Amino acid sequence: MGWLRKSRTLLHEGPVVRLYQDDVVRPDGKRGLYSHVAVTDGVRVVALDEQGRVALVEDDFYLQGRRMVHLPGGGCEGQAPLDAATRELAEETGLASANLQMLGIIDPLPAITSARTSLVLATDLRHGQVRRDATEVGMTMQWLPLCDAVEAVVTGEISESGSVAGLLLAERRLGQRRR
Amino acid sequence: MGWLRKSRTLLHEGPVVRLYQDDVVRPDGKRGLYSHVAVTDGVRVVALDEQGRVALVEDDFYLQGRRMVHLPGGGCEGQAPLDAATRELAEETGLASANLQMLGIIDPLPAITSARTSLVLATDLRHGQVRRDATEVGMTMQWLPLCDAVEAVVTGEISESGSVAGLLLAERRLGQRRR
Repeated sequence: MGWLRKSRTLLHEGPVVRLYQDDVVRPDGKRGLYSHVAVTDGVRVVALDEQGRVALVEDDFYLQGRRMVHLPGGGCEGQAPLDAATRELAEETGLASANLQMLGIIDPLPAITSARTSLVLATDLRHGQVRRDATEVGMTMQWLPLCDAVEAVVTGEISESGSVAGLLLAERRLGQRRR
Repeated sequence: MGWLRKSRTLLHEGPVVRLYQDDVVRPDGKRGLYSHVAVTDGVRVVALDEQGRVALVEDDFYLQGRRMVHLPGGGCEGQAPLDAATRELAEETGLASANLQMLGIIDPLPAITSARTSLVLATDLRHGQVRRDATEVGMTMQWLPLCDAVEAVVTGEISESGSVAGLLLAERRLGQRRR
């Protein structure tokens, strides 16, 4: 391994983000400072109904200043990925799944944070009660054929990394590709 | 739009990461604090040779404490995506491309940072001089058939979000999928 940590300083601790600065020895042997953030691991859920439609949600993203369409999901908050998928899916869409499978896992920004995002395929869906939190009051939900959701990835309308990876991997696994 | 910014405070300014804390009005009308980081936009390059092989690099990731295989790329550092793609591809692989096309753009962690990663397809390749920077001294390069690189995405061996999205979108565009 090329990197060595000499010491770590916590520079900021907020409710969502912790910022650290490490004193490191870099791969070339020189000393340096390495800033990075700790945030919760995430999960994104490809919830697919029997007609091959996927559940998408849309809400206001503060930093982008616009609404974004994405897969249901959010922070794992210490839960295992499938448990977090179950909770987030219920909160944001009211759906419960009797068949959850891991589709993959990605490192969204590995140079800045070690947080990972798990991608989950959810089928055998039942409808229940939506229980969105305070930041999700403007959230809306829609059903889209999986091939149309993948087309929205290709055009850039869907751009959140976990949603992009989850939809492309789901299409690949299910072989429901449209040409 | 559901979010409103009242004020912004710069909490930390490092060479790579700036941390901000904003005083906001949330979508439910309540006041709150929103921490977020500013980092450079990124680029990842799918460099494809005439045999359908893609150039992959591997180096030490500090936060993960292991080597990771990924597409060539890095920070845009103020350059347009195609210019940054040209520079990063040359630095990390020595390759020059006479045909660069945008494959897409993703938001790696949109709740934490507005930084985006552009995905670029590079063909018509020529070989030149590798000029890696100090953090890349242990970097190695390999050529892999695109279908094998996508298989490495499916198995999770390749997990960096820009590499995952870039490879899956390239496969989709080129129709070189293996079943």
